[in-house]
Amino acid sequence: MATPFGDRLRGAAHATERAKLAALLVTPSADLRYLTGYDAPPFERLTCLVLRPGADPVLLVPELERPRAAASPIGGELELASWRDGDDAYGALAGMLPAQGRFAVNDTTWAAHLLGFQRAVPAAAWRPGSAVVSSLRVRKDPQELELLSRAARGADEAFRRITALRMDGLREEEVAESLSDLLREHGHDTVDFTIVASGPNGASPHHEPGARPIRAGEEVVLDFGGTVGGYFSDMTRTVVVERPPNGFSQVYDVVKEAQEAAFQAVRPGIPAEEVDAAAREVIAMAGYADRFLHRTGHGIGLEVHEHPYIVAGNRTPLEPGMCFSIEPGIYLDGQFGIRIEDIVTVTETGGQRLNRATRDLETVA
Amino acid sequence: MATPFGDRLRGAAHATERAKLAALLVTPSADLRYLTGYDAPPFERLTCLVLRPGADPVLLVPELERPRAAASPIGGELELASWRDGDDAYGALAGMLPAQGRFAVNDTTWAAHLLGFQRAVPAAAWRPGSAVVSSLRVRKDPQELELLSRAARGADEAFRRITALRMDGLREEEVAESLSDLLREHGHDTVDFTIVASGPNGASPHHEPGARPIRAGEEVVLDFGGTVGGYFSDMTRTVVVERPPNGFSQVYDVVKEAQEAAFQAVRPGIPAEEVDAAAREVIAMAGYADRFLHRTGHGIGLEVHEHPYIVAGNRTPLEPGMCFSIEPGIYLDGQFGIRIEDIVTVTETGGQRLNRATRDLETVA
Repeated sequence: MATPFGDRLRGAAHATERAKLAALLVTPSADLRYLTGYDAPPFERLTCLVLRPGADPVLLVPELERPRAAASPIGGELELASWRDGDDAYGALAGMLPAQGRFAVNDTTWAAHLLGFQRAVPAAAWRPGSAVVSSLRVRKDPQELELLSRAARGADEAFRRITALRMDGLREEEVAESLSDLLREHGHDTVDFTIVASGPNGASPHHEPGARPIRAGEEVVLDFGGTVGGYFSDMTRTVVVERPPNGFSQVYDVVKEAQEAAFQAVRPGIPAEEVDAAAREVIAMAGYADRFLHRTGHGIGLEVHEHPYIVAGNRTPLEPGMCFSIEPGIYLDGQFGIRIEDIVTVTETGGQRLNRATRDLETVA
Repeated sequence: MATPFGDRLRGAAHATERAKLAALLVTPSADLRYLTGYDAPPFERLTCLVLRPGADPVLLVPELERPRAAASPIGGELELASWRDGDDAYGALAGMLPAQGRFAVNDTTWAAHLLGFQRAVPAAAWRPGSAVVSSLRVRKDPQELELLSRAARGADEAFRRITALRMDGLREEEVAESLSDLLREHGHDTVDFTIVASGPNGASPHHEPGARPIRAGEEVVLDFGGTVGGYFSDMTRTVVVERPPNGFSQVYDVVKEAQEAAFQAVRPGIPAEEVDAAAREVIAMAGYADRFLHRTGHGIGLEVHEHPYIVAGNRTPLEPGMCFSIEPGIYLDGQFGIRIEDIVTVTETGGQRLNRATRDLETVA
């Protein structure tokens, strides 16, 4: 069976060379899954892919995981090395590395491992590996786009179904549970978050749903996602129960307009921060600049947050195949919050929404 | 409501001082949950608890998560500081830290964050935080022991029920699915792993269950766990279908005897590595030294693997309240594998098993 992993490994080796790195080290993470298909959990025992310019890649694994690594999609094509409990895993790794130079390590590597690397190769300089691996991961291939689309459509469908629910009187955590069931029903393998924030809780962007009963005349922020074939959905809609709170509808229109403005800004070649600026400008013009508490969005793929970040200061030019969220929000302490989020992909000529659910204000019972 | 978090934070502050650290930094992790009850996922946005000798603890959070942090168990008692998307979070953190000294960071902090800390405080020396926080976490209090016991009893019960299953003809992944359901049925909030390894797959200690059909005359290694109230179960039993493979029963007895010898070695004051040595000696005497591919065990609590590790070289003296696995195994390539694992706690006078399921060889249909 053809896998993309050989090509991706070669791409990462070239990117390592272009970045003038002596080595790129990749521990269990989305980066390792992307490059090799090997899905090991991050643990205290060191598993580490070693990429060096001009040398074949090697995967160092704990001896007890050697059979598991060998059975992984890339197992037959990748040199495996192993160390045994009680051995010095960092010493074993250092034996494969030059004594000095610039090294990169994937962003989510545990500090305990990085400190082990730094002790084992004290003359090395270290930098985050995202600059290398993300340069590949940001451009989604057709198979990846298909999985992201399926995830987005499943989230759309879960949203459509949840709006049929009578929310008046339900607790936030009950709606969260229903959303979770609906995501699974609509093709999700995992459900990773279900934010349900009602009334004043809506003003907390990462609210943890609780026992608060939802009441008529309140808004409910629904922000949810999970994975389909390893790729994430992440969508937010804000609905009202029976009727909008006082002053809500005008603010809703501002957020909706900001979301549209950011979407319209998407095209190849513009810096990521311009998409953020487009949303921010609409919200600032309406007088809510300091109530838009976060960046406009984040890349999405094997991780729910990944490069490119849609944030002031990120001058990375957009490229076709990039996928990210556009999710402006306005949060009014003690009153309500509003956020509208779609996943968008960059095409040759502009942007395309992977989510299709309406962004018009929906009223539920 | 009385929470343990105030005491734990004070304990960590004292441990930080005793270790002559300028600061201990704790990002989202089991350490952060242990110290504060704040259960935030690890992400690219920096959340970091700062403990400094002689100063009050501060929790630095992304501004959009401030309400969530304030609503957490320790939110009302802990000073919160925040930074905003687009700000330099590491600069904000450095402003709370001395310009030099020895700093510790929790083991699972992302490398991208540690590299950010190292850039922001270039004169600092960094070490893993486990030496500090684990000195507290290793000794479980009565509430923690109660949760670990409930988790172990739930695992025992799931094992008892799974042995009633007719395994002959089932695929490994089907048995894994049943184990998962049974763990939830018996009090587990999450199911984190269900290794089901039959026949030659049993020789791979961390085998990923697959489509292989289980057959009469084979062994099945079942290694499974999840959480109850945040605390882990982790148990392994090896059963045979209808009848043992050739040569299996004698090897099973060796593993069972090694497990018992390690358990009998447990008492306060002895170095952790002596428990490992006790199991290893039995297996070596039987001629399988190089077929026992891993350490004898690992601590367990809010993480499935934590300190103390039961491994050669770990001279940490056992103390009452410590909890860890004892899980020797013998793995014969191409034939079969055997592992028997219980969670054990150290008492004032010896050890006590939290798992109660029989370690005698069980035969299933």
